[in-house]
Amino acid sequence: MKFPRGFASDNNSGAHPQILAAIAAANEGHVRAYGDDAFTSGALNKIQALFRGPSEVFFVFNGTGANVLALSAMTEPHHAVLCTENAHIHVDECGAPERFTGCKLVTTPTTDGKLTPTLCDRLYRGVGDQHHVQPRVVAVSQSTELGTLYSPAELKALADWAHKRDMFLYVDGARIANAAAALGVSLQQMLEGSGVDAFSFGGTKNGILFGEAVVFLNPELAAGFRFRRKQGMQLGSKMRFLSCQFEALLTNDLWLENARHANAMAKLLEKEMSGIPGVRITQKVEANGVFAEIPREATAKLQAKSFFYVWNETTNEVRWLTSWDTTPEDIQAFAAEARKILN
Amino acid sequence: MKFPRGFASDNNSGAHPQILAAIAAANEGHVRAYGDDAFTSGALNKIQALFRGPSEVFFVFNGTGANVLALSAMTEPHHAVLCTENAHIHVDECGAPERFTGCKLVTTPTTDGKLTPTLCDRLYRGVGDQHHVQPRVVAVSQSTELGTLYSPAELKALADWAHKRDMFLYVDGARIANAAAALGVSLQQMLEGSGVDAFSFGGTKNGILFGEAVVFLNPELAAGFRFRRKQGMQLGSKMRFLSCQFEALLTNDLWLENARHANAMAKLLEKEMSGIPGVRITQKVEANGVFAEIPREATAKLQAKSFFYVWNETTNEVRWLTSWDTTPEDIQAFAAEARKILN
Amino acid sequence: MKFPRGFASDNNSGAHPQILAAIAAANEGHVRAYGDDAFTSGALNKIQALFRGPSEVFFVFNGTGANVLALSAMTEPHHAVLCTENAHIHVDECGAPERFTGCKLVTTPTTDGKLTPTLCDRLYRGVGDQHHVQPRVVAVSQSTELGTLYSPAELKALADWAHKRDMFLYVDGARIANAAAALGVSLQQMLEGSGVDAFSFGGTKNGILFGEAVVFLNPELAAGFRFRRKQGMQLGSKMRFLSCQFEALLTNDLWLENARHANAMAKLLEKEMSGIPGVRITQKVEANGVFAEIPREATAKLQAKSFFYVWNETTNEVRWLTSWDTTPEDIQAFAAEARKILN
Amino acid sequence: MKFPRGFASDNNSGAHPQILAAIAAANEGHVRAYGDDAFTSGALNKIQALFRGPSEVFFVFNGTGANVLALSAMTEPHHAVLCTENAHIHVDECGAPERFTGCKLVTTPTTDGKLTPTLCDRLYRGVGDQHHVQPRVVAVSQSTELGTLYSPAELKALADWAHKRDMFLYVDGARIANAAAALGVSLQQMLEGSGVDAFSFGGTKNGILFGEAVVFLNPELAAGFRFRRKQGMQLGSKMRFLSCQFEALLTNDLWLENARHANAMAKLLEKEMSGIPGVRITQKVEANGVFAEIPREATAKLQAKSFFYVWNETTNEVRWLTSWDTTPEDIQAFAAEARKILN
Repeated sequence: MKFPRGFASDNNSGAHPQILAAIAAANEGHVRAYGDDAFTSGALNKIQALFRGPSEVFFVFNGTGANVLALSAMTEPHHAVLCTENAHIHVDECGAPERFTGCKLVTTPTTDGKLTPTLCDRLYRGVGDQHHVQPRVVAVSQSTELGTLYSPAELKALADWAHKRDMFLYVDGARIANAAAALGVSLQQMLEGSGVDAFSFGGTKNGILFGEAVVFLNPELAAGFRFRRKQGMQLGSKMRFLSCQFEALLTNDLWLENARHANAMAKLLEKEMSGIPGVRITQKVEANGVFAEIPREATAKLQAKSFFYVWNETTNEVRWLTSWDTTPEDIQAFAAEARKILN
Repeated sequence: MKFPRGFASDNNSGAHPQILAAIAAANEGHVRAYGDDAFTSGALNKIQALFRGPSEVFFVFNGTGANVLALSAMTEPHHAVLCTENAHIHVDECGAPERFTGCKLVTTPTTDGKLTPTLCDRLYRGVGDQHHVQPRVVAVSQSTELGTLYSPAELKALADWAHKRDMFLYVDGARIANAAAALGVSLQQMLEGSGVDAFSFGGTKNGILFGEAVVFLNPELAAGFRFRRKQGMQLGSKMRFLSCQFEALLTNDLWLENARHANAMAKLLEKEMSGIPGVRITQKVEANGVFAEIPREATAKLQAKSFFYVWNETTNEVRWLTSWDTTPEDIQAFAAEARKILN
Repeated sequence: MKFPRGFASDNNSGAHPQILAAIAAANEGHVRAYGDDAFTSGALNKIQALFRGPSEVFFVFNGTGANVLALSAMTEPHHAVLCTENAHIHVDECGAPERFTGCKLVTTPTTDGKLTPTLCDRLYRGVGDQHHVQPRVVAVSQSTELGTLYSPAELKALADWAHKRDMFLYVDGARIANAAAALGVSLQQMLEGSGVDAFSFGGTKNGILFGEAVVFLNPELAAGFRFRRKQGMQLGSKMRFLSCQFEALLTNDLWLENARHANAMAKLLEKEMSGIPGVRITQKVEANGVFAEIPREATAKLQAKSFFYVWNETTNEVRWLTSWDTTPEDIQAFAAEARKILN
Repeated sequence: MKFPRGFASDNNSGAHPQILAAIAAANEGHVRAYGDDAFTSGALNKIQALFRGPSEVFFVFNGTGANVLALSAMTEPHHAVLCTENAHIHVDECGAPERFTGCKLVTTPTTDGKLTPTLCDRLYRGVGDQHHVQPRVVAVSQSTELGTLYSPAELKALADWAHKRDMFLYVDGARIANAAAALGVSLQQMLEGSGVDAFSFGGTKNGILFGEAVVFLNPELAAGFRFRRKQGMQLGSKMRFLSCQFEALLTNDLWLENARHANAMAKLLEKEMSGIPGVRITQKVEANGVFAEIPREATAKLQAKSFFYVWNETTNEVRWLTSWDTTPEDIQAFAAEARKILN
């Protein structure tokens, strides 16, 4: 294989064959640009049909675009967004949230990548004081950047905490499919049922070429979002090619199938690696990520076989992610290498 | 045909078969995300090889992203960008340039969509006065929003005008391929040879699914652009799927072939339509656009057959665009309809 | 006199003695900073008492701050502000409105510096089209940058036009006192009675050291303005010294007396100058400004005696402003010089 | 006394009589607005004369304006500013730095309000990684928000650390006078000698009505700052009234005299309070601030006599600031109250 599959990121995987087939099928003749087409209305309807109440859905190019534009729809520049210290919006988006919303991100360390009402209490400061940014959004990732999950009850507790304070709950769902697959609940139960106000429905990491959806379960937040998206440089002209991918992803639960497979592979990887001397799994493996401390001297050798990222330089904790196309053979080969290096 | 080809926009067309083939070919195994892959370095090299001097190239999602991020690299927020009154950056990007660069766009009416040094002279105001934004960039579109072209000499005159004033010349090249094909000159001659500082190399309107390149011929302007792109929400994670489309577009001059065909179809459309009573061609047909005044009462009838946009409500001037997939039969059928309605 | 009074700008004048006396009187002991003091509540009350309905008032440092923060309270970044081509917000604030609101200013030429519903109709474009900024605010200056006035009926017509379209009317009142004095109506009649949503109450040009008030007659627009002002760098710490100036200005109608005097001086200046050969008054003299075309060759000579600005280089139209401290003797001396030079 | 002096903030004090005298003296006739006047050039020269090398100086309205505009001159939006967790720019400016520079503030806890190269090392992360903001400025306050001081050697160590990494050192000098007075060194020695790139020269807290100066010791950073200030809504029109205050402040070392007095009063306050049972001084008293833990139940009672702020709710640490007009009698009266309440 020219480009062997590894565990560096689910972004490193390609697209599911059904996605390419959907693009090929959509590639006929002319349709109106910018979303005024049947592919787009079809895909939007499929997402809206996942929920009971009214919702508003918008396709955008990437996860940073989804997060930033959704947050900008929920805030004014003097607001604050509460999140964890290792939230993607805080550490991996090159300051885009601050730049485009004007807001400050107010962060807390966590042990497992998860916010709680108690942690939020500590971040809820300076309310009403004109010198301080005003808390407006609680932002969490589901699954989290550490591969852990919020139960629907945990999300509900956060939504209740937020709503009591006239705040909103936003979910960065770059890996929402992995969460749904792992929890065995519908998006309706997990998100709408918990009172989530808006979330991103990630496609890119789950087997499509590119694309995310911003979903407002609180549809009032969507007022003017069409303009916000265009001004935010996230309106695709040949929208049908983005929409048709989501249409395919939502057909026959491909999104769940892809995620279930990735999650199962993470469990297998955990099993294979946890028995190896010197490897210590550091986080619950609940979705498609495995975090482990490994001997520092082994890192480069194992990376040379199959690249992955060191998550924490201090503790030499590494991150391994599985994806929709990871095979048991990939895992066994990787574990065999690890065993060879570490024994 | 389910989605008949029309003349509303080159954005309404699909992708060339070689583009889909390139995506399918790139869809194997894992490669590093965010552009650290061989597809991307290959495509970047192909673009850089079009020029003699050093250049810096970056792929982004769409034309607005390309224009806005390029302009932001050339300006500080107290600067002004000089452009025509119907520049895409002024009328069709929902204020994204102002929002993200902070700059003011200073505009002038034109008869043919083209800036000239004389027009620029009139826009060059308030220089050195702290109450006024300071002119920094001349921004033109090639081909223009009115389907007209700048000759290399005209671009050079603008570049010279700009450089004399410590300003830059930026070219919105959403249809740069149509310009190159029509002028019969290389991008090197047209742009580098004229002293253009940066331009966008449009892919979307020229037969790919999505994607544009920002090209800095003045490579100093590219300092920090990687961060600007990420913060600007324009960094694709599965970059190989964007890069491979450009790679295919630049192979065997597919980009020129597509553009030549679209241009030829515009000439044919002009020829067919200009003989019809009541139709008056209003702009030189130099690239892939035909602008015409038609009888107001005929507009809706003709649109019902094949949708297109009214460009100027006052004069009932309409815009017809051809694309890489327009056929002579499409044009003859459209002209036949027009004849039927107008006779 | 070390610094002779001229006609370049009402900003060039100093402060009325009663203003300095008010500052001296406020300069005792400690009071809480940032507006939590009796001077500030007193001054705010005095402004609110000018109106019948509820209002919200905030002091800021300068006119640009007032305009920009007020507009930001009325808009989201994808909105447009409609104004005249020579609006202060468009030409004299170095792009601050675009930079901080994100909005585009959409402008029209005028003959007299005044917007009308008919002119607004022409600027009201692209509504509902996601590619276009969405009109949200009509912004006018009262008195205008050309020294002309809107009657209350004209303001009402603009407010009605705006409100019918879910838009707001904002009045840049850097010279609102001159307008009130000239029209002989109360601010209540002129502004609240006409349906104005917000305005700036200018102090600086009317005899104080520095300071403007942002007044929301539509108090819903003031939600969060305290935070907006602080984030907008316009919250003064020793607020009492700003408030006490407004307190003094509103005592015994000093604001109106100052403005009436300036207006009367403009009338006198018009009278004196209009008889001089070669001088052609170009705008109605309705407030404290006189605009005139004068022979180009006389300009520098007259400026050398007493500096003023050329308003329009093409026509050699100049601007003369009077202020609260202009004396008839100042005018006669200036007119005498002009006569000498022009005869 | 109608407004008794307290210890809540040096912002609560009024202006020194010499300042009011300077304003009265400047209040004659007309001078050009926006800084083109002799008062302003005189005051700028007086500040520049404090240093050996070239410098650029600009007056602005307030401390937030000074900090934000100076930082914006040193950064692009994808940069990061390193500072302490309780830096004024981080906690007391309502997110203005993020809003207007686009940058992220990257913060660290400290025990004494001071950054060190070692702490900076920990904040220096993600360099060269396009997903991360790029460190560009080290920002410190002198004296700090905790009343402590950087020695010139400590500042030099930070400047060296920054310059080695192509970064800048910025000093928030809202209380730079207190630092200079306490250290007994000139601003030249403390700042220019240490390699500081830019600082704010605070006037407001040191006995003037309002006003700060932004000083670029690295004059290249000042390119375009005139436009930045205007666009940043910090250009005063009647500039002479701001300049003349600085002129007075710099005459006969009034700025140092005011600061020395405030510092001496802080020492006296420390001495008086530290002997009271239950009072524990928590920070070195090096400038004009005294931080102390006091019994929680005593707080409200003491505040009722003379208001002050609780700095840390958890530990019931309070902040007492002295100012140019604090008298020994003020302190003795306050200490007597405290003794009465606490005994």
